[in-house]
Amino acid sequence: MELDELLKKLEKKEIDFNKLESYLNPNEAALLRRLFIEKNSGKSLSSIGSTIIDFKDVYGKNIENPIGATQIPLGVAGPININGNYAKGSFYVPLATTEGALVASVNRGIKAVNASGGVNVIIIHDSMTRAPVFSLPSISYCKLFINWINENFSKIKEVAESTTKYGKLKSIDTFVTGNNVWLRFSFSTGDAMGMNMVTLAVEKACEYIEKGFPEAKCIAVSGNMCSDKKLSYVNTLLGRGKTVIAEAILPGKIVKEFLKSRAEEIVETNLRKNWLGSARAGSPQFNAHFANIITAIFIATGQDVAQVIESSSGYTWAEVREDNLYFSVTLPSLEVGTVGGGTQLPTQSEALNLLEVKGSGNPPGSNSLKFAEIIAATVLAGELNLLAAITSRELGKAHMKYGRKMNV
Amino acid sequence: MELDELLKKLEKKEIDFNKLESYLNPNEAALLRRLFIEKNSGKSLSSIGSTIIDFKDVYGKNIENPIGATQIPLGVAGPININGNYAKGSFYVPLATTEGALVASVNRGIKAVNASGGVNVIIIHDSMTRAPVFSLPSISYCKLFINWINENFSKIKEVAESTTKYGKLKSIDTFVTGNNVWLRFSFSTGDAMGMNMVTLAVEKACEYIEKGFPEAKCIAVSGNMCSDKKLSYVNTLLGRGKTVIAEAILPGKIVKEFLKSRAEEIVETNLRKNWLGSARAGSPQFNAHFANIITAIFIATGQDVAQVIESSSGYTWAEVREDNLYFSVTLPSLEVGTVGGGTQLPTQSEALNLLEVKGSGNPPGSNSLKFAEIIAATVLAGELNLLAAITSRELGKAHMKYGRKMNV
Amino acid sequence: MELDELLKKLEKKEIDFNKLESYLNPNEAALLRRLFIEKNSGKSLSSIGSTIIDFKDVYGKNIENPIGATQIPLGVAGPININGNYAKGSFYVPLATTEGALVASVNRGIKAVNASGGVNVIIIHDSMTRAPVFSLPSISYCKLFINWINENFSKIKEVAESTTKYGKLKSIDTFVTGNNVWLRFSFSTGDAMGMNMVTLAVEKACEYIEKGFPEAKCIAVSGNMCSDKKLSYVNTLLGRGKTVIAEAILPGKIVKEFLKSRAEEIVETNLRKNWLGSARAGSPQFNAHFANIITAIFIATGQDVAQVIESSSGYTWAEVREDNLYFSVTLPSLEVGTVGGGTQLPTQSEALNLLEVKGSGNPPGSNSLKFAEIIAATVLAGELNLLAAITSRELGKAHMKYGRKMNV
Amino acid sequence: MELDELLKKLEKKEIDFNKLESYLNPNEAALLRRLFIEKNSGKSLSSIGSTIIDFKDVYGKNIENPIGATQIPLGVAGPININGNYAKGSFYVPLATTEGALVASVNRGIKAVNASGGVNVIIIHDSMTRAPVFSLPSISYCKLFINWINENFSKIKEVAESTTKYGKLKSIDTFVTGNNVWLRFSFSTGDAMGMNMVTLAVEKACEYIEKGFPEAKCIAVSGNMCSDKKLSYVNTLLGRGKTVIAEAILPGKIVKEFLKSRAEEIVETNLRKNWLGSARAGSPQFNAHFANIITAIFIATGQDVAQVIESSSGYTWAEVREDNLYFSVTLPSLEVGTVGGGTQLPTQSEALNLLEVKGSGNPPGSNSLKFAEIIAATVLAGELNLLAAITSRELGKAHMKYGRKMNV
Repeated sequence: MELDELLKKLEKKEIDFNKLESYLNPNEAALLRRLFIEKNSGKSLSSIGSTIIDFKDVYGKNIENPIGATQIPLGVAGPININGNYAKGSFYVPLATTEGALVASVNRGIKAVNASGGVNVIIIHDSMTRAPVFSLPSISYCKLFINWINENFSKIKEVAESTTKYGKLKSIDTFVTGNNVWLRFSFSTGDAMGMNMVTLAVEKACEYIEKGFPEAKCIAVSGNMCSDKKLSYVNTLLGRGKTVIAEAILPGKIVKEFLKSRAEEIVETNLRKNWLGSARAGSPQFNAHFANIITAIFIATGQDVAQVIESSSGYTWAEVREDNLYFSVTLPSLEVGTVGGGTQLPTQSEALNLLEVKGSGNPPGSNSLKFAEIIAATVLAGELNLLAAITSRELGKAHMKYGRKMNV
Repeated sequence: MELDELLKKLEKKEIDFNKLESYLNPNEAALLRRLFIEKNSGKSLSSIGSTIIDFKDVYGKNIENPIGATQIPLGVAGPININGNYAKGSFYVPLATTEGALVASVNRGIKAVNASGGVNVIIIHDSMTRAPVFSLPSISYCKLFINWINENFSKIKEVAESTTKYGKLKSIDTFVTGNNVWLRFSFSTGDAMGMNMVTLAVEKACEYIEKGFPEAKCIAVSGNMCSDKKLSYVNTLLGRGKTVIAEAILPGKIVKEFLKSRAEEIVETNLRKNWLGSARAGSPQFNAHFANIITAIFIATGQDVAQVIESSSGYTWAEVREDNLYFSVTLPSLEVGTVGGGTQLPTQSEALNLLEVKGSGNPPGSNSLKFAEIIAATVLAGELNLLAAITSRELGKAHMKYGRKMNV
Repeated sequence: MELDELLKKLEKKEIDFNKLESYLNPNEAALLRRLFIEKNSGKSLSSIGSTIIDFKDVYGKNIENPIGATQIPLGVAGPININGNYAKGSFYVPLATTEGALVASVNRGIKAVNASGGVNVIIIHDSMTRAPVFSLPSISYCKLFINWINENFSKIKEVAESTTKYGKLKSIDTFVTGNNVWLRFSFSTGDAMGMNMVTLAVEKACEYIEKGFPEAKCIAVSGNMCSDKKLSYVNTLLGRGKTVIAEAILPGKIVKEFLKSRAEEIVETNLRKNWLGSARAGSPQFNAHFANIITAIFIATGQDVAQVIESSSGYTWAEVREDNLYFSVTLPSLEVGTVGGGTQLPTQSEALNLLEVKGSGNPPGSNSLKFAEIIAATVLAGELNLLAAITSRELGKAHMKYGRKMNV
Repeated sequence: MELDELLKKLEKKEIDFNKLESYLNPNEAALLRRLFIEKNSGKSLSSIGSTIIDFKDVYGKNIENPIGATQIPLGVAGPININGNYAKGSFYVPLATTEGALVASVNRGIKAVNASGGVNVIIIHDSMTRAPVFSLPSISYCKLFINWINENFSKIKEVAESTTKYGKLKSIDTFVTGNNVWLRFSFSTGDAMGMNMVTLAVEKACEYIEKGFPEAKCIAVSGNMCSDKKLSYVNTLLGRGKTVIAEAILPGKIVKEFLKSRAEEIVETNLRKNWLGSARAGSPQFNAHFANIITAIFIATGQDVAQVIESSSGYTWAEVREDNLYFSVTLPSLEVGTVGGGTQLPTQSEALNLLEVKGSGNPPGSNSLKFAEIIAATVLAGELNLLAAITSRELGKAHMKYGRKMNV
């Protein structure tokens, strides 16, 4: 059938707008859908239609009802010198953003840290979590239920892991409110961010649990104590994704030359802005703009961008050491993967490849750990530069230079 | 000069990788930069290079050091029926995401609300804020300073507004911690999200304030009580961007037919997951996945994506009313604009145009208000559907259907 | 009737244990009740029975079902030198506590601040709040309701103030979640803490509001946004009770001589403990032990001790200034009164009298403001000393000296 | 020497006001100190001086610089029927308060739960914590430090436990921010609340740790992640003191007869007030007034009253079950003891004795667990009654009846 005929049928609602892929291959379906909307709305969507994405590869995996793609400018910062356990060496970092001055800002920070010996990074925790909530008849059942879970951990682990090749159940933490019990499952998930892997595993585990302890009714496979795409203290305290810490020690003359500032001043800005300010605002995020850098890398590399929320939790801590500036960033719940999700898309896959973290690592998990280290180091550079720019009151100039677009 | 020659100069560091736009037009510079990195890394970046973006339009405005673009699949949900004060009628909503099942999920929610009379939306607050922090010699100066600010409000307003055509200073709230004072400026900003407009205005105001009250030293033009790209209670309580509330009332048979569930069950899931779960997790976000829908719309329409953090704060509240389901979402700090930022980019501008909110509204501000109403209505549909899917335990099936990619 | 006979009747349940005051004067009733419980339990309660409280004065006002009194050791710290707007001079501060080392700790802090010129104090906010929650049929009614409240503010104020001599309604802030609206009423309340005064006034106002806007149903006269006896950001941001700030500037030699420490060290302890530690713990209280001092004063002076929760919110901020230590405490929601509540009781009234803040001030309100200044200054002394003791590692010694009882 | 002579010496500052116990026995010292202040201030403190406390028993243990005692009215509620693991049977509960209506309120709640079969209670966690913060030269040392702590756990345990008879180290949780590491020690502490026992043990452990890992410098034996006398998510998530849950199931007719309400109404009030209201206020306490009941019991029984802050964290959860009301309270961090602190004082010791929890239990720890169960059950009764009173709008009447003193 021709597109024209299908378009008419679509207008007459003889075929379903949401199921064009039943009639056409995904690329044709995307085209038809776009044409229909253009006709219907009288608006051109030709730029959206101009994409290199092959919807045969992504339909039903990354998107439904596609009509094309959004294109976001991609800049590179770096190369940044990193001394991690996985990331060792020099990396160009891809940043997809529409926010003027962001790449330039990160870049200036990178120059300063490179001139100071680079960025050290460690990772102290790695897991992905899912926390179903169960309702029980009474609190005495809650107590029995928790005991039952602990006693049957091995069996639950077996059931959960039967759904996945890479996921390994590490622990189940329990929390109670009245007659409600949350089981917070923590898995290692190899190089995948793992949210979906873990959801499937936990669904299976819940079926088993409900059979074995029939008084417990699973209300929701996600009971918000996971916590996914939400900022929470359970994440900052117990970790979700990777807990990563990066630091750099900058000689005073580097701070002056590259950042037009002094160690004392940056420390003071950090304290009054990031600590007093966030405390007073009631914000759990004691940093200036981790979110900017993480968002730009997440978009560029096919991460689940909504997870920028918990991923940009964290703490910026700086000290004066004699004439030097000690500067660190701590990210308790950075959620990233190098397989699955949007990582296979054409531009995203190239971005990961540029960092040499595409796909499954050897050993499994090492790519996503390396990736997390690169992100944390870049966050440090971007955070450092913004604090310096605020301190030396260069924000205004940066605005003017980079077209009135600056986030603080 | 030819690209080849420039490439060699670049390798020899005779020209600056970060300043290629001094030698070449931005599109050529982007090409050269990409070729250099490809050569340097041995990795192809050809998909990234294949973009319709004209860097002459975006360089120095939205991006620095560009090498191309990231392409993200764009699907449409809807049309969704909305009864707002600005958005009235039926809208196809563009969602850019790599998360399988998201568009389908929103779409099913839309069908259910459309069959129930559509979504009502109200907006009860609209402003953009910036909160510099000042250090003072002592607390007695803090008190004098606050008095001075209040007495000189008109003059400060005049100075601040001198930098902007659309920005109007509405109020300055003061907060004190020891010898530190925050001034939280609130502006109306027309159709712009306004962060940058407000930063420039506040910088100017701070210069004036420091001259008029020399004992006050501005430590940072952003003292984190704004709060930008951070979740905070000052935002949920006093508002930032738009405070938007949406609701739908679904007959029991619609809940059953479209959502395979019952009002009582959805209410129960909402309570135990979104309220008990978030409270127990220590999360200020009492919802399931506002972030998913907001992120996808923000990417599609050129918003500042890192602002998804505070924009996805909010509350899902549901009640059983006889046989019906009353369902609402409240977004206290939704930050959006239809001019500035990434809204002018080719695909982003088409997406806004599809919603008929591109550019400046008539009257000014009406486009961004309409846009905010559309987002809130779509969030409602997506939130409703996820709660229903969790309740009826269809997540697993959705996973299987949509390629193991599902966020909860 | 004799006590013996009544005791028998009580055992036979012929008279009601909870209503002995119907048969006897309150002192006899208290005695009979105690004897009955002693007999019933076989335990002596003779110390509890040995009280100077005359239950004729307190029954039905401060207590029901009395059997006697609890006696708590009362120590004095000071005199502390205070430079406030209301408290000017030198004050002995009464502290009722069972926590060894507390009075000694405060006392050492006082010596240090006295030797440094005393404590400066300012108050920047004063109000008492109550926030009823209303349920409405839909969000469009919410918007109409808020408008109605604003338009009828004068009338609501008149109705609310009709119930009280001292209470004056200053403002009503509105907050919305779905179809729920909170009205946060703020009153000035003279020298009373005012919680009860305000509750009665708001109950009356709610009756008026429900008549004038019948679609709004008041679900609870307290909707938890007040927030009473709960720590909350609405209190720290918008204030409840008094917002008080105190500071002292200590020469380095005083820090060394009196506190065995150095300015740099105390600043460092404050940062890593009170700021990093509380942020990491997910605590909104960025201080070490405001609660200890406030609790002891509240017990001694007949305050509502459960209000120690929000009253001990607050921030400790210290800076090095050349060789000196700048030290401040900020208490955003200190709730105190010098009339009403337990302030009339014999020992409590004497304690207030010692501070010369008993009863109603001239002008009204000045006594409670003076009292708040004294508390904040004492909190500063106690906080300073604990940080110094931790820094110089003297806690252990203090334990040994003061009987293994120390809170940090 | 006569009192008169000493008084003169005191006035001439020939003897130290803070060290009168060097010259006199504690009771005489307290008297002299009081007389001096009376003379000095011209105020009578005779009620404060009239106490049964023998300062020979408490000086240097519970108080310094004593002048007498504060007397607080003590009422009894109950008896309340409890089905716990430790508390089984019927208990009169002592409540020391100056807040009119509180005892009556708890009492009405008790009647309702007794008529419904009493209160069930479980305890799911029991420990006392202390979290020192260490500063390290760099993050690589942080990682080594954490490994060292884990490897040397047995030795650290041995050292820590050497200071105490009852304290047993259960675990050490580690948290990192930049170059700072917190070690959160958890101990079982028998029947003591244990704060002091644990502080001494951790001080000793820290000395050992600093010797074994000299690059780690202990900045503060309490790094605020304990968290003592501060509300925090680390406490609600990981527990501090006892985690206790209580429930009652009330038939509809009992709710109507005793509480003048209906199950549906109480559930609605609980949701809109305690859940929506606290969420909106930014309060981590999702309850109405746990603090009132806990404060009154803490004062009556010699607990560390400032710990009411974290002890009154918690969640009130209610459900409609057919015609019945399911009602529960969850207290994640209730900190209580039956030995040490103020528990030995005359009136406090009688109050504990009345509950049959005085002193060390058999087995050790059972008394404090029983005591925690009694508190939780009483909290449930008081919370239930307040929600009912709010629902049926009886607060105003209660005010009038009980002398304008009511907290909500």
